[in-house]
Amino acid sequence: MDILKDKILSEGTALSESVLKVDNFLNHQIDPQLMHEIGAEFKKRFEGKGVTKILTLESSGIAPSVMAGLLMDVPVVFARKRQSLTLTDGLLTSEVYSYTKQETNQICVAHKFLEEDDTVLIIDDFLANGKAAEALIDLAEQAESNIAGIGIVIEKSFQEGGGLLRDRGHHVESLARIANLAEGKIEFVQERENSNANV
Amino acid sequence: MDILKDKILSEGTALSESVLKVDNFLNHQIDPQLMHEIGAEFKKRFEGKGVTKILTLESSGIAPSVMAGLLMDVPVVFARKRQSLTLTDGLLTSEVYSYTKQETNQICVAHKFLEEDDTVLIIDDFLANGKAAEALIDLAEQAESNIAGIGIVIEKSFQEGGGLLRDRGHHVESLARIANLAEGKIEFVQERENSNANV
Repeated sequence: MDILKDKILSEGTALSESVLKVDNFLNHQIDPQLMHEIGAEFKKRFEGKGVTKILTLESSGIAPSVMAGLLMDVPVVFARKRQSLTLTDGLLTSEVYSYTKQETNQICVAHKFLEEDDTVLIIDDFLANGKAAEALIDLAEQAESNIAGIGIVIEKSFQEGGGLLRDRGHHVESLARIANLAEGKIEFVQERENSNANV
Repeated sequence: MDILKDKILSEGTALSESVLKVDNFLNHQIDPQLMHEIGAEFKKRFEGKGVTKILTLESSGIAPSVMAGLLMDVPVVFARKRQSLTLTDGLLTSEVYSYTKQETNQICVAHKFLEEDDTVLIIDDFLANGKAAEALIDLAEQAESNIAGIGIVIEKSFQEGGGLLRDRGHHVESLARIANLAEGKIEFVQERENSNANV
């Protein structure tokens, strides 16, 4: 997705060989027009999959998900990183370790919002080691929902998550795939635009 | 805003005299079409205020904010509830006590995303005692930004926050104002539609 890659090149910062900072438009400040474009791209890439619900994780997954949900006309459910007092019964839970924050979070979703007859599109802002995506898959599997696929805004292809998910047969669509962040430079995986839409 | 009030009546639950659960469309599952309508209503109510940025708080403020940002064509910044490792320098911080969660959170925003020449619209999902809104106002004041007003999806008018903010001269627009949650019933403040747009 060229406008996303251009935005990453112009406003993203490679903080280290593994950390890409995109807080100008995705993780802290949000560019709503770009999120709308991202939502349209997810809609295109998962067209015909019969998606009935989008599942994401608070907080940075919410903006791209809600735009995709608007355009695909389906509800969005965001998994919470811990239990709140107004949500107590009927929770599905899983665990996700964050390497960035160096902590394990319980994530949970109310079972009533993920059901057997749902076809779920999982959306997240980043895919690196795959821990967050795996936990969201775990929640959808606990609910016995069908999983349409996994839509990722930025995949760090030099980390193992994308490979692991594809090896397990998941349909993963990443709108920008980073090959390398060495020496402060951002390099993308070379691919024809939308080539991974045919995987 | 009638469609919001209808949604609250049909899908909201008064859990107690002070807790309204709206996790079907706002706090956990999100209705993107409704969020788009809410964004349009905020745009209408703050038209001509010269808003350059929307400031909200993760997580439930993000969906209505990003729709308002899309329609008003301004960026959204969400304050984070604690520091993440990729955000260290140049933070503005404040504190907010959550009665629901019974804990105090540090909230922070990168100073570079809130500037002196910004005119900020603060958006949040709920207004009850006003602690979250006050902390967001504090962040905007630390940045010496101009505050255009405060847009709230659901105000619990029987709690003191709305009165306190209006007494301090803030332009507060709440799209649904709850008068009472006693005995499991949801009662709205009687007002002509949009009457508080003229306050």
